[in-house]
Amino acid sequence: MADPDLDSDDLPVLGLDADDTLWENEAWFHEVEARFRDLMEPWADNATADSALLTTERTNIARHGYGVKGFVLSMIVTAVELSDGRVEGRRIGDIVSWGHELLDRPIQLLDGVVDALDGLGSTHRLLLITKGDLNDQMGKVARSGLADRFWRVEVVAEKDEASYTAVLDRHGVEPSAFVMVGNSVRSDVLPVLGIGGRAIHVPHTTTWALEEPDPVAVAAADFPVVDRLADVAGLLAASPVD
Amino acid sequence: MADPDLDSDDLPVLGLDADDTLWENEAWFHEVEARFRDLMEPWADNATADSALLTTERTNIARHGYGVKGFVLSMIVTAVELSDGRVEGRRIGDIVSWGHELLDRPIQLLDGVVDALDGLGSTHRLLLITKGDLNDQMGKVARSGLADRFWRVEVVAEKDEASYTAVLDRHGVEPSAFVMVGNSVRSDVLPVLGIGGRAIHVPHTTTWALEEPDPVAVAAADFPVVDRLADVAGLLAASPVD
Repeated sequence: MADPDLDSDDLPVLGLDADDTLWENEAWFHEVEARFRDLMEPWADNATADSALLTTERTNIARHGYGVKGFVLSMIVTAVELSDGRVEGRRIGDIVSWGHELLDRPIQLLDGVVDALDGLGSTHRLLLITKGDLNDQMGKVARSGLADRFWRVEVVAEKDEASYTAVLDRHGVEPSAFVMVGNSVRSDVLPVLGIGGRAIHVPHTTTWALEEPDPVAVAAADFPVVDRLADVAGLLAASPVD
Repeated sequence: MADPDLDSDDLPVLGLDADDTLWENEAWFHEVEARFRDLMEPWADNATADSALLTTERTNIARHGYGVKGFVLSMIVTAVELSDGRVEGRRIGDIVSWGHELLDRPIQLLDGVVDALDGLGSTHRLLLITKGDLNDQMGKVARSGLADRFWRVEVVAEKDEASYTAVLDRHGVEPSAFVMVGNSVRSDVLPVLGIGGRAIHVPHTTTWALEEPDPVAVAAADFPVVDRLADVAGLLAASPVD
């Protein structure tokens, strides 16, 4: 907190997404998907490989959850299927090593994030809410160097109305006094509006196909969109939470 | 809670482990390890396969975390290494499908667990604390049919003193007023004693090699051991928490 004399318990709570809101994430997965297409070339053209991988991910998301390990398992399953079992073991070993690269990759913060968090943290208690693999996500928070800027960190299996309700209840936050900020309309905006909170959309360059929101729900929703995290403070100042 | 008139906020908090404390877990991993040994027979004898897998798991635990997906990735890495890349893709596909079997497996509660939880839940707020993959663990809680018996559920990446301190702080529980119950001395007993709490050990039949506690720390610690979860209530009645 910028002002240590201020009783931070009185500050409103601001929810923040992590992947592609604070740091790059999706882009690294796209790099690996390009390698996967190359690996599949003996058996499938690029479009077929992409489409088969997405189908596997969609089938397995409930079982694998979000995160690198589930992504790696989906690539392996897809490689075995597309090659009719003929893909070599050492090529599968390559896929696993791509996953390790993703897991070990240094965190690349988006431009202006540190200053933006310093500003937001002086007026709000910052509650990081991220979905995915617990180990991956906590590791990224630690490696980001940002951990001490957050009041609390929550990793959830899915970002839906039930999980936001549970998180806010656990931390004693009324939905009507809560604002969520993130890059995903499906995960960071719509479910928060659905439980009576507010949300600010900060789009990032790419959106994973499984993260695309229902266009009907988007059309019916009304929420502000800003270009960068640095723009959130001005918006909150113009329309503060209770 | 057994008595709805009782103000549950006044009840002391009892921590419970899940895997191999409430339901079978390790045994299913052992079954899959036996299949893995068979799969490796063209390249490695059983002892070599076991030892190589354990080495891979130990190397990758920080990166993979605990859970089925990390276990599957470790088997794949080990299979590729032991076969010098010659293992067939379709055999790797088999390994992934074993993982799916583990993830989809119905929960087999240990004997007497439901009755024991009903008893304990009438006198305590039950806080489930389990480590591993968030998606796997929350899925198991849901499939167990026990979810509504718990006051709160926490999935942590590691069960060490820091994570117990964070969990208890988050839920407003003083360590001195906290008792943890579980089958792992390393994860459920020693770190809780280390932060000034109490712990009760309920051993299960098998312990994973990476779960074996430091024998020096065990020798220095003093904690009760009971045969079954049903025996915990009597122990707590004889020596209640504040």
